[in-house]
Amino acid sequence: MEKTDRPSHLDAFMAPRSVAVIGASRKRGQGSFNVIENMQAFGYGGKIYPVNPLADDICGISSYGHVKDIKAPVDIAIVATPRDRVPDAVRDCAAHGIKGAIVVPQGFADADGAGKVLQEELKRISRETGIRILGPNTLGVLDAFSGFSSSFMPLKREKAPVGVICQSGVFFVGSAVFTGALGKGIDIGNGCDLDFADALAYFSADDDIRVIFVHVEGLKDGRRFLEAAKEAAKKKPVIALKAARTARGAEAAASHSGAMAGQWEVYEAAFRQSGIVSAQDPEEVLDYTKAFLRLPPMTGKRVGLVTFTGAGGIILIDSLAMVGLEVASLSAATIDAVKALSPPWMPIQNPLDIWPALMKKGMKTVYRVALEHVLRDPAVDGVICIAIAPEIPEQAQLDATDVIRDTAAAFKEKPVVAWLYGPNQRGISEKIEKGGHVVAMPSLPRAARTLAALSRRGQFLRNDEKADMPSLA
Amino acid sequence: MEKTDRPSHLDAFMAPRSVAVIGASRKRGQGSFNVIENMQAFGYGGKIYPVNPLADDICGISSYGHVKDIKAPVDIAIVATPRDRVPDAVRDCAAHGIKGAIVVPQGFADADGAGKVLQEELKRISRETGIRILGPNTLGVLDAFSGFSSSFMPLKREKAPVGVICQSGVFFVGSAVFTGALGKGIDIGNGCDLDFADALAYFSADDDIRVIFVHVEGLKDGRRFLEAAKEAAKKKPVIALKAARTARGAEAAASHSGAMAGQWEVYEAAFRQSGIVSAQDPEEVLDYTKAFLRLPPMTGKRVGLVTFTGAGGIILIDSLAMVGLEVASLSAATIDAVKALSPPWMPIQNPLDIWPALMKKGMKTVYRVALEHVLRDPAVDGVICIAIAPEIPEQAQLDATDVIRDTAAAFKEKPVVAWLYGPNQRGISEKIEKGGHVVAMPSLPRAARTLAALSRRGQFLRNDEKADMPSLA
Repeated sequence: MEKTDRPSHLDAFMAPRSVAVIGASRKRGQGSFNVIENMQAFGYGGKIYPVNPLADDICGISSYGHVKDIKAPVDIAIVATPRDRVPDAVRDCAAHGIKGAIVVPQGFADADGAGKVLQEELKRISRETGIRILGPNTLGVLDAFSGFSSSFMPLKREKAPVGVICQSGVFFVGSAVFTGALGKGIDIGNGCDLDFADALAYFSADDDIRVIFVHVEGLKDGRRFLEAAKEAAKKKPVIALKAARTARGAEAAASHSGAMAGQWEVYEAAFRQSGIVSAQDPEEVLDYTKAFLRLPPMTGKRVGLVTFTGAGGIILIDSLAMVGLEVASLSAATIDAVKALSPPWMPIQNPLDIWPALMKKGMKTVYRVALEHVLRDPAVDGVICIAIAPEIPEQAQLDATDVIRDTAAAFKEKPVVAWLYGPNQRGISEKIEKGGHVVAMPSLPRAARTLAALSRRGQFLRNDEKADMPSLA
Repeated sequence: MEKTDRPSHLDAFMAPRSVAVIGASRKRGQGSFNVIENMQAFGYGGKIYPVNPLADDICGISSYGHVKDIKAPVDIAIVATPRDRVPDAVRDCAAHGIKGAIVVPQGFADADGAGKVLQEELKRISRETGIRILGPNTLGVLDAFSGFSSSFMPLKREKAPVGVICQSGVFFVGSAVFTGALGKGIDIGNGCDLDFADALAYFSADDDIRVIFVHVEGLKDGRRFLEAAKEAAKKKPVIALKAARTARGAEAAASHSGAMAGQWEVYEAAFRQSGIVSAQDPEEVLDYTKAFLRLPPMTGKRVGLVTFTGAGGIILIDSLAMVGLEVASLSAATIDAVKALSPPWMPIQNPLDIWPALMKKGMKTVYRVALEHVLRDPAVDGVICIAIAPEIPEQAQLDATDVIRDTAAAFKEKPVVAWLYGPNQRGISEKIEKGGHVVAMPSLPRAARTLAALSRRGQFLRNDEKADMPSLA
């Protein structure tokens, strides 16, 4: 639980003006995992100093026999030697005035007893010399904005406002299926020195980043993590995926990143208090990231539903109940407006099943009237729209994309989530999201969970506002 | 709880030689919901008799003023009149010797008191005259094999071996997002006469159908349903999605299909005993359908894992624990084979984290050795493979698709599920499924749940075999 007052130097890690690569590989091309080749492909514009006593030239750059031979200033080093040589390499970097080292290799606390000893030595070197260490067992950092990445895995550069903090490269390589995109990433790895709290503080202050995602297997300093997360959550949404939740998972995590996993329930409660939105499942990370980037927080728990299908409405009611949201009791004005369009025998309530009405009056008119009234209804905090996702032209007149997109854009203060059923779910979902004020979910339970996340965020911001007020006096 | 011994006539409903459409509409084209136009587009080859006293010709077919004017034999009728005229229309059909009527309109037990009275009248007519009724409040039937559909919603024709039984047209229109495909469908609607049990018995005996999916809001005769489901489950997998699970959902279901929903826990236990695989979520229906069509049942609970990523392995261990599956304790032969390819410091256990090995020996060799050993291992009942889904060419040498697909094809008796992470998840998933012996899932929890469904199916078949043995003596 020691306190770290030393600067994290993460600004240098993320956007170094110059970088030394210790143990730079001469192999190139497919399957070589060549860090320097990847940096060049990623578009890094700073100075690269390969260090490899056996090479003259690496990827077209003159190589150095030893880091001390580099006569120009070096911001950070990437250390990619076999594990036994890592401590000396880091010590040499520190002696040469380098502020930070990314220690890439596996085989430390994630491996055997000898590895644990080596990791302790790294920690000691950092304390003694002041050099900050990221890793070991890490892909390091990625910054699509500065154009720097230390990843030995080739990755795409995409300036997305999403910052990822993780303990495994899978969240860099697999960002498309976890967060959708990865603008900046910090892989803590085994976390012998730099830790989650440092990365949280960094992304919290970073204006390029609008949503932070944290993958946690285990924490060494829980209090520091929660404080940093809470500070960050005041500024932007923080989503956490706590892995190693079961006893068996925790056991495996101890050997993966050398971390103690701790009790899941304890984490869950602490996360909630700190304003972290906890994802139970990697798909929730994807959904929540998308929603936080596009939709406002939800100011309450009351959901209005507009649907083509009664059966879909019922699945949705179940889904809302399971995540603690409420089916809004709609105002008389809303009920009356839809009643006026429906056959007299049709019971009108929330969910607004507009099928009988649209069979008579046409889809666009009915959907627009219903959605406008629901969005304007003071008894409603957020809305879920159910509509068809047609592929065959004969169903095209039932495509409600334009109506939902345009109506939602006129009521930006309430979140609107859509579930589109039919053969063209993917295509219509992309179309409806283009306006920027609707998010489409592939299933109703995921639509409900996403609104619940927006509601938890809204609640945290309201409580936080209240909690902070006394301190202003 | 009355017993129905009358034949269901579902063979006539699904593949009628001739069909009368009572209340046939003269409107055509987009938004007209014209049943006859849809039948023609769907490729129906039987005889169509439009009945509409105000029209001479509907969709190019001579129209009749009354059903009794049709001089040729008629198998079934589609009734699409306003609700008040439905009872007389059905009575006329019965008098004319028609075996079955699909009653399309809403406004019966799903609506108001008058609607409930009308539905009771329909039930009485069926009992008295012998005509079987599907509905009211239904899209009716769809049979892509016979080429007949009564749907007023235009639908695609796709000969998939999936039979859907539901209480709402959303499962016809949205089949792409529920079951992936829909070869045959029976929409029970409000179920005034023909019920789930009839449809289950029909699909159970139907060789075109390999997987049955049932959407249940509520049941009128639970025992008959469970008996029919159990008989069907002995022959093919039966997946059920029970909607209206929460109190609020049940309330809404009462007004949607007029059904009493009942206690979810009671259903869940009864489903399990009857060999029904219960889906908690519409996405599980999609996953399970795909898996049952391609993979064998799993003969136990022990899962072997081959992974590029330790972090992914840990999420998977959590996911397995949550669905009651076990992380297999691998045999010494399997451990030794992977150990021989790995650095000496790498702890080798299940999940088999092969990253350090493949960095040294190349992906294809290592993945193949590991997967072959796991599949051959007598301590393993099913396998989950984790691999990258590369999009950029620089990652292509890590594409394990061929290895996983070909190795799995050589061990058909154990189910193999893959999770592919990376930007091209969809493309690589399609590629890996082409061999027919691997199913790809979009997330690790879904991969685990799918194996659990295959394991439940295996357990039911084993118990059923045992349970049936005494009765053979």
